[in-house]
Amino acid sequence: MKLMYAPQSPFARKVRVAAIELGLAGEIELVFQAVAPTKENEDYAAKVNPLRKIPALVLDDGRAIHDSTVICEYLDDLTGGGRMIPVSGPDRWDVLTQHALAQGMTEAAVLVRYETWLRPEERRWPDYVDDQWNRIEAGLDWFEANARGLEGPMNITHIALGCMLGYLDFRWPDAGWRDGRSRLTSWSTWLLRRNSFKQTVPEDVVPA
Amino acid sequence: MKLMYAPQSPFARKVRVAAIELGLAGEIELVFQAVAPTKENEDYAAKVNPLRKIPALVLDDGRAIHDSTVICEYLDDLTGGGRMIPVSGPDRWDVLTQHALAQGMTEAAVLVRYETWLRPEERRWPDYVDDQWNRIEAGLDWFEANARGLEGPMNITHIALGCMLGYLDFRWPDAGWRDGRSRLTSWSTWLLRRNSFKQTVPEDVVPA
Repeated sequence: MKLMYAPQSPFARKVRVAAIELGLAGEIELVFQAVAPTKENEDYAAKVNPLRKIPALVLDDGRAIHDSTVICEYLDDLTGGGRMIPVSGPDRWDVLTQHALAQGMTEAAVLVRYETWLRPEERRWPDYVDDQWNRIEAGLDWFEANARGLEGPMNITHIALGCMLGYLDFRWPDAGWRDGRSRLTSWSTWLLRRNSFKQTVPEDVVPA
Repeated sequence: MKLMYAPQSPFARKVRVAAIELGLAGEIELVFQAVAPTKENEDYAAKVNPLRKIPALVLDDGRAIHDSTVICEYLDDLTGGGRMIPVSGPDRWDVLTQHALAQGMTEAAVLVRYETWLRPEERRWPDYVDDQWNRIEAGLDWFEANARGLEGPMNITHIALGCMLGYLDFRWPDAGWRDGRSRLTSWSTWLLRRNSFKQTVPEDVVPA
């Protein structure tokens, strides 16, 4: 299997962490893809994902699987299922909903990054950045207030939230998301020390 | 159950169509929520979804389920499962990947809408709009080339794609997405005539 990825992408990191936790990393070859809004990558669009988004997993028979959530579920299924996402019952809907929250926070952070880095300066809209940060902060507050749900075996929500927090540290090391959130801070300290996270620390390929 | 929705949202429409197709519409009360970037809705953020996104499903015990994909899977599960998303096997990953494509196209369309309507005019970036349209067009071409996959019983991909096409007709009636895409056109003509789609035609609450 080949994973189309970039080393700075929190969504690709989610899949890489899940693969390590599931013991599948050795079966996955990482293939770098440069994708960003307004940057062409026609070959990738034609062969893998018309949306030009990473990650995507290309199977040995050539079929592509995306997005990051579907790939994580696929890898989970390969090893028997139920570790990343509970197979059934109320736990399944709780995990998937909390994962959607962590995922939405990450999407908001990436929108902030595009708005404050990719977009020409005179076309940036501070109210939009504030709005996306407000969503991220509201999500952080939610996880702080519900930190008990972060206990227990690692699942897709924990991984997505860890990649989200790692992305904040990577892009905005001075944003202070830990302030007033002691439970989330202490959980993330434990999480980010795991091998799966230490092996996938984000880095820029092209300094920007 | 209460579905937090807005009548113009393609993501909320996906859930409404799925509920009708599954025979569950009678058990769901629709509750309007005004949400958009830079528009506050603190009550909704505190009680339902910190991301301030719709749709969200609030169960009778007060628990919330989101996003639209998780809600569709939940409703599918309530009626036995396997109608919206195949339970297992290669079909599951094909449907989920194609659904991610339709979903990503819809997200691109909503980004275009925000960029060309919500954002102050002098802060708009034409290259960004072009880039998002390019993703939508690439996705449309993909479904036209793979239209055979649209045959068979209705699943979550068909519904998401139908809501996407309906959203294009709603917001950009002159964009001409049907040009050169005869198979997608004829399939969508059949789809959009179904009761589930006719009962959920998008409309603006506040003219804009």
